[in-house]
Amino acid sequence: MFWELIGIAAASLTMFSFFPQIFKVLRTKSVKDVSPIMLLQLSGGVSLWIVYGLHLKNLIIILANSITLFSLIVLLILYMLYIKR
Amino acid sequence: MFWELIGIAAASLTMFSFFPQIFKVLRTKSVKDVSPIMLLQLSGGVSLWIVYGLHLKNLIIILANSITLFSLIVLLILYMLYIKR
Repeated sequence: MFWELIGIAAASLTMFSFFPQIFKVLRTKSVKDVSPIMLLQLSGGVSLWIVYGLHLKNLIIILANSITLFSLIVLLILYMLYIKR
Repeated sequence: MFWELIGIAAASLTMFSFFPQIFKVLRTKSVKDVSPIMLLQLSGGVSLWIVYGLHLKNLIIILANSITLFSLIVLLILYMLYIKR
């Protein structure tokens, strides 16, 4: 039970980790210091994790990486929106 | 073998994902758009993943998250160094 909680805490912290970055971008409307290569590389990585999770039929891997992918897509849209300014 | 390669590609892309951000910060010496909460939350998350990996005796989880933690610590040091300017 203790170790399960450690795993759940680890997954929760990492899968929601880009939400503070989204809120910061929405507040400042500035993205020039954010690396778009990082965002694209992570999006590719977590997409492959979702594919791998579907293969393993592991709901945790699928769900955690789907939330991360969603937040990365939001960040990429915000990046394209604000980098032009 | 195909699915192992998908897993290895997924792990490689995600564990090295912060290196482009490190290179960008080193080049521009500017971090004001990077969220320090994101960096701290991710550092806490991957630290717990390492603890969980040690419990599971899973070398992949330990190794992948150690590389990510290393890159996040480098980013946090760069953040503190450049945010003052």
